[in-house]
Amino acid sequence: MIDLKQIEEFIIDVPDFPKKGIVFKDITPIFENHVCFVSLVRHFARAIPEDTTKLIGIESRGFLLGAAIAQHLNVGLVLARKPGKLPRQTQSQTYSLEYGEDELQIHTSSIAKNDKVVIIDDILATGGTAQAAESLCLKMGADVLGSYFLMQISALKGKDKLTKPVHSFLQV
Amino acid sequence: MIDLKQIEEFIIDVPDFPKKGIVFKDITPIFENHVCFVSLVRHFARAIPEDTTKLIGIESRGFLLGAAIAQHLNVGLVLARKPGKLPRQTQSQTYSLEYGEDELQIHTSSIAKNDKVVIIDDILATGGTAQAAESLCLKMGADVLGSYFLMQISALKGKDKLTKPVHSFLQV
Repeated sequence: MIDLKQIEEFIIDVPDFPKKGIVFKDITPIFENHVCFVSLVRHFARAIPEDTTKLIGIESRGFLLGAAIAQHLNVGLVLARKPGKLPRQTQSQTYSLEYGEDELQIHTSSIAKNDKVVIIDDILATGGTAQAAESLCLKMGADVLGSYFLMQISALKGKDKLTKPVHSFLQV
Repeated sequence: MIDLKQIEEFIIDVPDFPKKGIVFKDITPIFENHVCFVSLVRHFARAIPEDTTKLIGIESRGFLLGAAIAQHLNVGLVLARKPGKLPRQTQSQTYSLEYGEDELQIHTSSIAKNDKVVIIDDILATGGTAQAAESLCLKMGADVLGSYFLMQISALKGKDKLTKPVHSFLQV
C-alpha cells in the first residue's frame, strides 16, 4: 500500500485540455497501476463512515472509484447518470455549466428514506455536479454523510456549494 | 457468494427503452446489492486468465465492472473511452452504429507490445463496440486473451464479429 503523496505522483497535468488555459488533471495512470489503484481505494474505504448504506457514483469517473470502493465496503453502489441513460423512473436535478445546463438522474427505486449515502467522484472543481448529486440525494430523502473526492481544486471553491461534509484526499 | 442464476434475477427487463421494440437489460440493481456485485466480480476474477497484465474497461458500464474486477486481480485497468475524453495522445478505432459511426480511444501510453489484455463490458449485443475495442488493442500490439461480458444477447450475433475468445456469464 502506498501513501497519498505517492499516489499524487501518478497524476499527469495536461495543459490546455479540454481548452486553452485549463490544466487537466489526468488520473488515468492511477487506474493503470494495480498497487496505486488498490491503495487509493483503501484510503477511501477507511475514511468513509461505517454506517454508510450506499455509495453514489457520479458518471463516469465516479463509477470507477465507486465500483472499486464498493468491493471493500459492505455497501451497494447507486449510479448518478446523465439524462437518458437510466431506463426506469428517475429523480432529476439540473445544474449550471459555463454555457447552458446539464442534469443528473438517479433511479427512484435506488434510494430509500433511511439510507445514509456517501457521494463519490474524482475531482471537486467548481462543484456544479457535486452540488446536483447532493441536492438530488437530499430531495430523495437520504441522509448525505458526505462527499468524497480524490482531489479538490481549492481555488475553484466547489466546497462552498456543498452543505454536507466534504473530504478530499489531495488538494491543489 | 451467490451463483450466476441468482445474479441474473437482479436484472430488470425494461420494454421499449431506449426506443420502441427494444427490451433493455437494466443491470443497475446488481451494483446496488453488495453481495450480488461482489459475487459477480468474483465470477469474472476466477474466469480471467492468470497471465493477464491489463484489463480494458469500455466506457461507461465496463468501467464499473473493470474497476471492481481490478481490485481482485493483480492487474491495472486501462480506459477505452469515447472521443474527446482522454487528454493525451490516443489511438482510435471507429465503428458503425445503426445510424452513423462512433469511435473508441485508448491512451497510446496505456498499452505496451507485451501486454496480455482482457476486454471487459457488461453486455455483448451487436458487437460493434467490442469489435472496436478488440481491433484497437490488437493495433496497439497487445495480445488479446479475450473479451468478457456479463451477458450476451445471442440472437444479435455479436460474438461473430470478434476474432479472439469471448466469454459471457449469462446468455439470452
